[in-house]
Amino acid sequence: MRPVEGLTRDAFLGGKLSICQPEQGYRAGIDPVLLAAAVPATPGQSVLELGCGVGVASLCLGVRVPGLTLTGVELQPFYAELARGNAHANGIALDIVTADLAALPASLRARDFDHVIANPPYHLRARGSAAPDPGRETALGEATPLALWIETAARRLAPRGWLTLIQRAERMPALLGAMDTRLGGVEILPLEARPGRPAKLVLLRARKGGKSAFRLHSPLILHEGSRHERDGDSYVPAISDVLRRGAALPWPA
Amino acid sequence: MRPVEGLTRDAFLGGKLSICQPEQGYRAGIDPVLLAAAVPATPGQSVLELGCGVGVASLCLGVRVPGLTLTGVELQPFYAELARGNAHANGIALDIVTADLAALPASLRARDFDHVIANPPYHLRARGSAAPDPGRETALGEATPLALWIETAARRLAPRGWLTLIQRAERMPALLGAMDTRLGGVEILPLEARPGRPAKLVLLRARKGGKSAFRLHSPLILHEGSRHERDGDSYVPAISDVLRRGAALPWPA
Repeated sequence: MRPVEGLTRDAFLGGKLSICQPEQGYRAGIDPVLLAAAVPATPGQSVLELGCGVGVASLCLGVRVPGLTLTGVELQPFYAELARGNAHANGIALDIVTADLAALPASLRARDFDHVIANPPYHLRARGSAAPDPGRETALGEATPLALWIETAARRLAPRGWLTLIQRAERMPALLGAMDTRLGGVEILPLEARPGRPAKLVLLRARKGGKSAFRLHSPLILHEGSRHERDGDSYVPAISDVLRRGAALPWPA
Repeated sequence: MRPVEGLTRDAFLGGKLSICQPEQGYRAGIDPVLLAAAVPATPGQSVLELGCGVGVASLCLGVRVPGLTLTGVELQPFYAELARGNAHANGIALDIVTADLAALPASLRARDFDHVIANPPYHLRARGSAAPDPGRETALGEATPLALWIETAARRLAPRGWLTLIQRAERMPALLGAMDTRLGGVEILPLEARPGRPAKLVLLRARKGGKSAFRLHSPLILHEGSRHERDGDSYVPAISDVLRRGAALPWPA
């Protein structure tokens, strides 16, 4: 299937998922796949993704866990439309709501969810250096403060519901600083590109009404070896299983 | 030398330091030793320790780095007096100021320091469960909010000066949430008791006026092996060098 001009069609999960996304602008890489793999969802549960983009995280989760009720919120109509198309093309029921996190429609505000997931924008918008593509700008920029993402998640979670987030490690202080008092049992799982390197990404789990103390887990390593030595992606087996076979990410006990 | 009743005399740094401290109440363990080992101080610099207790961290630092100007602030007169005695007994010039962090004397407020170090109290005071010993209560309780420790440190640091803190890993969200805008280049070094376990302690470094992005370093492991298997403390060589020989802690690049 030849994609529309300006769009690419990319395989995820070793081809289990085919994703149409813009050639320019924000493009999904491994982050939403790792996010989906870290969600402790079981069949029949409900999942809300905040800022779902073209739908990669929700659709990866739908491939791994059958019978989920999946809902994604996306601000930008163009990405929302691509997400609807991707859901349809992959035969996964994913309901996309085009809305601003700060003003969710009443239909969403009336519901609560077993899981809320998000891959919030990474970079603080640098003054005077707006990205040329407006889609890319909103996905990577800080149009919506991190605290609003967390607060919206806390509101929409059912009691004992789980929040799962992925974020660049350098944003961890902002992420932890934005934690909502309704959330507890916060856990951080650092992801290191190679052993001994600073964490590149962090996965965060928290639970609505959770009481457990914060835990900083031992990092998960993404790549084999201490440096890039051979062709191919060199992922460790557990990460390769996540990215190429749609496995769950091994979350530490 | 026989200690006074109710006090013990304990060897630190393989006997390079002899510390008199209360038998009951807050007792220094490895935490202040690890803190001192993580401070990037060079000969001739000035160091302020907030909440110095009986002086273990400052004195360990004085043993490792010659020619420092060491100052400790301690709220409780009994601990402050023990710190003065410990400095004298070990022949290290450590000036102890008995004061509340929230109301430092003008003589201290007129100075700035190349380094501020602290091992702030760990536990939030549980309602209705005051510890029997008031000294222990103040050292372990949350009499002074963490944000005040950080703010006081930020104020007392010279431009480009370093803050070094040690804290239980479960307090990391509060620690990062309390970061002062005058501080940047924040780095966290997690300390895991054994490989693959959640971090037990975290060391934090930050720099006044620092601009670098936050870094979450790969953890440092304290003990050899995956479980306690033999007598003795089983520390990995780098940690044993810190605790038994007064070495610097290997801070990742």
